[in-house]
Amino acid sequence: MIVRLIRVWVKQDSIAAFEAATKLNHVGSLNEPGVLRFDVLRKPDEPGVYLLYEVYASEQAAEEHKQTEHYQVWKEAVAQMMARARESETLAVVAPTQESGWRAVR
Amino acid sequence: MIVRLIRVWVKQDSIAAFEAATKLNHVGSLNEPGVLRFDVLRKPDEPGVYLLYEVYASEQAAEEHKQTEHYQVWKEAVAQMMARARESETLAVVAPTQESGWRAVR
Repeated sequence: MIVRLIRVWVKQDSIAAFEAATKLNHVGSLNEPGVLRFDVLRKPDEPGVYLLYEVYASEQAAEEHKQTEHYQVWKEAVAQMMARARESETLAVVAPTQESGWRAVR
Repeated sequence: MIVRLIRVWVKQDSIAAFEAATKLNHVGSLNEPGVLRFDVLRKPDEPGVYLLYEVYASEQAAEEHKQTEHYQVWKEAVAQMMARARESETLAVVAPTQESGWRAVR
């Protein structure tokens, strides 16, 4: 498994549109066999700041995600909503070590 | 649900001991009814840097976690392993909205 933690800064007038677009990406992503988690989080005290917590079964699954229609639609939709460039970090897994420990009920 | 993202810097000579102690805390935490996730991650290119991704069913569950024996044992065990103070941020959930979407197979 690999984990991508992506921090997003959204313009104040784009918050509702960003959440709507990202929820569609969330649903589409969880239908990909190689996506184990796609959690969408927000900073409660900083409107417009979001974290995406994405867990992939493999590096290949992470690459395939970027080729999907729902990702491409999201990427284009939110491009004009960004207050600044997204920041991404990639993390390795210590625990849980089994794929079944990551995949929630859909 | 609430999410706690905790960043930890471990001394280079304490890496194996930290991982062992944290895996015990991981197992114990997932046995708490109010703990939905307790993911232990590491920065692949920065030995000693860890992220804990903890998801609780409620603020009360997050408080109860700190009263458990496995947390207290972990906290005491790792105190001398820290290279610097831990940093924690609390996040609210946008998606998934159902608790069942968070709880993985144990």
